[in-house]
Amino acid sequence: MTKLTFPFKVDIDFATGHVTAPAKVLTRRLSDLQGLFMDSAAYEQMLSRENPVLYDVYEIQVPEEAGHLASCTTVIYPGKVGKEYFFTKGHFHTIEETAEIYTCLRGEGYLLMMTRDGRSRAIKMTPGVSAYIPPYWAHRTLNCGGEPFVFYGVWPADAGHDYAAILDKGFKQRVMEVDGKPAVTE
Amino acid sequence: MTKLTFPFKVDIDFATGHVTAPAKVLTRRLSDLQGLFMDSAAYEQMLSRENPVLYDVYEIQVPEEAGHLASCTTVIYPGKVGKEYFFTKGHFHTIEETAEIYTCLRGEGYLLMMTRDGRSRAIKMTPGVSAYIPPYWAHRTLNCGGEPFVFYGVWPADAGHDYAAILDKGFKQRVMEVDGKPAVTE
Repeated sequence: MTKLTFPFKVDIDFATGHVTAPAKVLTRRLSDLQGLFMDSAAYEQMLSRENPVLYDVYEIQVPEEAGHLASCTTVIYPGKVGKEYFFTKGHFHTIEETAEIYTCLRGEGYLLMMTRDGRSRAIKMTPGVSAYIPPYWAHRTLNCGGEPFVFYGVWPADAGHDYAAILDKGFKQRVMEVDGKPAVTE
Repeated sequence: MTKLTFPFKVDIDFATGHVTAPAKVLTRRLSDLQGLFMDSAAYEQMLSRENPVLYDVYEIQVPEEAGHLASCTTVIYPGKVGKEYFFTKGHFHTIEETAEIYTCLRGEGYLLMMTRDGRSRAIKMTPGVSAYIPPYWAHRTLNCGGEPFVFYGVWPADAGHDYAAILDKGFKQRVMEVDGKPAVTE
């Protein structure tokens, strides 16, 4: 037996996404997503004026070991860079044969997924939608509504995060505002 | 790479615990929990009159393989056998070094946990409480309120369920109604 871990609990506020200790908050600002939005002129222009928080992640702390499960809430704030809705960096898992589950608690968004061999999928997220991200699928989320988009995620604690491929090639799909409404574009 | 699995979504009703397809419903009635309640006379007397549903589990179907994550909602209905609140059978995982996370969506209950070497823990569950069941801890839940107790759970899909030890020795802790209120007893 590895070292015995003891049970604990946190309190999740489904309306705000806030999580009590032992959760760690990770805040991503516009400047952390350099090179990821389609309209780089709009990105630079926005960044010259302000550096807004795009999203906060409240990660519940467990050992990063096989058998454990990591979990978090993510709060993506409403907004756009040009016509493209605020999104998360997105990642593959370092151990690629590991799944993840996202369940929407509040607001409206999309979950974008892709495989290394070019497949892509998009799932619309509204409260109560629980989306399954199978092994091998990179995943990014975005807020296409007018209020915070909050979701709860669970993944194997040893899965790891690989952001490099996304920084290099981006996601196949984007969600842009077209005629005042979100549209998924290839 | 094992066979590629494709993303999908289900809709979870946080108020009722109902989950749309591809979820499978497992229904446990009083007769399925023979020998588990403390007051066996009260159990037999109740069973001679009726065989109520104690809980329903809506399990979201994924391959039962390493790397995948299984998830479900569980709805435990309000009621008691003698002075003991309706509970789930409870289990260890067959692959014991695997965790599970339970998040309460509605109602009021307890999560009871124990290890094979005699440690025990109880966590009170109310909406928003997310409880971490570490590797090696058996787990049982119960409804100590007056409405359905609904929670959402996630675990590694290959973990398996071992009910035998519970049938044999039960749980160290029980939750009984004492002076009209729930009390955790050793």
